[in-house]
Amino acid sequence: MSAQKPSVPSGFRDFGPEVMMKRKFIMRTIEDCFIQFGFQPIETPAIENLKTLTGKYGDEGDQLLYKILNNGDFLDKVPSDVYDKKDSKTLLPQIVDKGLRYDLTVPMARYVSMNRSHITFPFKRYQMQTVWRADRPQKGRYREFWQCDADIVGSTSTFSDIELLDLYNQAFYKLGLPVIIRFNNRQVFDAILTPLAPNEAMRFMQLIDKYDKIGDKVNELLSLEVNAQAVQIWENLLAANKESGNEAKLAKLQSLFPSISLELAAEIEQNFKLSQASKGNTIDLDFTLARGLSYYTGIIYEVLPQPSALPTGFGIGSIGGGGRYDKLTEMFGFDGGQGVGISFGLDRIYDVMEAADLLNLKAQSSQNILICIMDEVNMPKGYALCQSLINQGVSAQLYPQAAKLRKQLDYANAQNIKYAAIIGQTEMENGTATVKNLITGDQQEMAVSLIAKHINPA
Amino acid sequence: MSAQKPSVPSGFRDFGPEVMMKRKFIMRTIEDCFIQFGFQPIETPAIENLKTLTGKYGDEGDQLLYKILNNGDFLDKVPSDVYDKKDSKTLLPQIVDKGLRYDLTVPMARYVSMNRSHITFPFKRYQMQTVWRADRPQKGRYREFWQCDADIVGSTSTFSDIELLDLYNQAFYKLGLPVIIRFNNRQVFDAILTPLAPNEAMRFMQLIDKYDKIGDKVNELLSLEVNAQAVQIWENLLAANKESGNEAKLAKLQSLFPSISLELAAEIEQNFKLSQASKGNTIDLDFTLARGLSYYTGIIYEVLPQPSALPTGFGIGSIGGGGRYDKLTEMFGFDGGQGVGISFGLDRIYDVMEAADLLNLKAQSSQNILICIMDEVNMPKGYALCQSLINQGVSAQLYPQAAKLRKQLDYANAQNIKYAAIIGQTEMENGTATVKNLITGDQQEMAVSLIAKHINPA
Repeated sequence: MSAQKPSVPSGFRDFGPEVMMKRKFIMRTIEDCFIQFGFQPIETPAIENLKTLTGKYGDEGDQLLYKILNNGDFLDKVPSDVYDKKDSKTLLPQIVDKGLRYDLTVPMARYVSMNRSHITFPFKRYQMQTVWRADRPQKGRYREFWQCDADIVGSTSTFSDIELLDLYNQAFYKLGLPVIIRFNNRQVFDAILTPLAPNEAMRFMQLIDKYDKIGDKVNELLSLEVNAQAVQIWENLLAANKESGNEAKLAKLQSLFPSISLELAAEIEQNFKLSQASKGNTIDLDFTLARGLSYYTGIIYEVLPQPSALPTGFGIGSIGGGGRYDKLTEMFGFDGGQGVGISFGLDRIYDVMEAADLLNLKAQSSQNILICIMDEVNMPKGYALCQSLINQGVSAQLYPQAAKLRKQLDYANAQNIKYAAIIGQTEMENGTATVKNLITGDQQEMAVSLIAKHINPA
Repeated sequence: MSAQKPSVPSGFRDFGPEVMMKRKFIMRTIEDCFIQFGFQPIETPAIENLKTLTGKYGDEGDQLLYKILNNGDFLDKVPSDVYDKKDSKTLLPQIVDKGLRYDLTVPMARYVSMNRSHITFPFKRYQMQTVWRADRPQKGRYREFWQCDADIVGSTSTFSDIELLDLYNQAFYKLGLPVIIRFNNRQVFDAILTPLAPNEAMRFMQLIDKYDKIGDKVNELLSLEVNAQAVQIWENLLAANKESGNEAKLAKLQSLFPSISLELAAEIEQNFKLSQASKGNTIDLDFTLARGLSYYTGIIYEVLPQPSALPTGFGIGSIGGGGRYDKLTEMFGFDGGQGVGISFGLDRIYDVMEAADLLNLKAQSSQNILICIMDEVNMPKGYALCQSLINQGVSAQLYPQAAKLRKQLDYANAQNIKYAAIIGQTEMENGTATVKNLITGDQQEMAVSLIAKHINPA
């Protein structure tokens, strides 16, 4: 076969060792937090029945689904009159019945619905898997990316809402990335938008959802496309939001909107009173947070990096989000799926932490050693030393040839290996190795039996 | 939208929490060994250009590739004369240009070829990702499964071959699954099959590759389909293989086949002299091991569970395999891709360890606690206690309602949670909790400040 010039499809990525070690640091940190908070892992297949996926993400989402061609003679059973139309939309359901996972929420709802009789609720599940969207590739938007979701299904408790605020806080604290955890409650909109007709309320939500992007243009568009009352509601909302501190914001909201019930206000107050922001993080009540037109019914969350942690001019998008939903599993015939969930955007968290130079030290292997043998005849003894170090719990490897020292040390540096044990003829005769710290350059000759303790003194 | 009866496509699986925790134990154990031996992670995309995949796995493999339908109006550019044939094979390349990963070896070869100018060789990479094959589903064969591969690319050293014997040994030792690590060298066949014509030699290899399944029928078929000389070679090979111990086997092979070079014999001897089997494992030279007609050119490996570790009658297939290859990256125009690699069959390892009851204890969470509040009014204090325990490093969760104690403890048991901290009105007034060990049933009242130390005395 003739040689191909290899490539990956547009919008897809290979991850080499350096990037992977950083990504794994992020994923293990998030996963450890999920586990510490009592969440348990599930995984669902990459390939779902197409009917499980379609109609769940809107028309645009349906367009972005990757569809798997039926295997074998896929045209065999297509009726001639259907085929002869030569129309993609008509032919599609005849030749495709499976698609790729588009998010982790719909598969989770399917899983919970299918397994409801075996599950003890509340069901605290986490799921970390790739999803695929046939989107136009651009900066920060990929066609294959990871989602890391934690949900508490079958709990209507406000303590579950608060737990996820604290989970966000803990995970970003452990990651070392200072964040703003914004939250709001959809019921605030229900209360303050009662003067508007349903279609006006929907337009109101659409517009303020763009507030991060279009800023003060919201007022103008509300005035043009909705009415003066909507503008007034929006200005009051902004006024409440301008107060300093969650407590003052909530008090102002209550004073400006008597339609906010005492019960709702008490719930919001408990959200920020019980949750705790670690050093560097803030947990901010933000009445302008809308989270689109999605299925959320109660608390909603969004996480942004603290601007002070980022290089000037680095574009800030959300790196996490979620909320409470009441009817997620109804599409699969199960009405017990009330719950609350959050998602971590792994790829964006990586991009942000890389830009803020927060990943370099953490991803490095903490202790490991390369055995460098200088004479081919001594390779078996070098190999035996390497296995002995491994048996002592050290991460060790033997350079597989008695190559020039320079070449062996170049390899060690390229792999971020911290130590080299150099064994030439003299050391071999003495039963020693020259152990060199490749970061400091310090080196000393020592008995091979002392190496493990030397490089791993704990 | 009307409710659907949800399902997953045939051959695909959901993994619930209990199974996932066991699978994660296996994967983390293998990954930790990869890292300890100095391998570094890479990941490649699920979706590859179809031309990267086709022609690499034989005709049967091409049939089993999952193909992604082109997005949008996929028929738009199909010429009418092509379309009008209504032939699946003719239409396929017009409407599909991408497919799903079928294994990790071809993507690795593509990655190495594409990135050869940035890679410091030898390149020790590991990769743990799912692959997809549109195979007929049956017991132990899935359409989506994990591969866990480690390769050393750009090394022709025999010490790299030996390292992978030891890596297999270490990984299964850490997993607690006793195994037989069989190995052989393809050059043995090159040496002993010289009397046969190339097509006879190929048929010889095909037949002995089935030896595990068809047993003594190999003799009969060699006699019928090849010739008497082939039968004689096979019988000599079996005779060498019957000797007790690797050393005796090799000596017998040399005496029966003078065509085995001293160099090859010395290399094989070094393989088993330098590698070390941990307690329970054996590393067995096995001259009947052929590993199909694949691209292997030197050492070949195969791992089987020790029959004594399995329940009687449990079918034993290989749970790992690999070998040395010389030309893997040539298909992508790079001739520096000589290397050696092994694979762990995660799904089969899981099946074997589950059948041998080796996963139960290991997958359990070692320490965690459920806070059980008996009165709704005390929930905020319970929540604060829970977060305080988390900040002390404990894996803690609050049952999100003041439900009946029985219900809360049922939840704890279903989640394999080890401790419950029960706080009723009395305990609340005393600043204490009744901490119950749910395994032993022991319980005692203690100050809440002592809980973390009590359940995690280290």
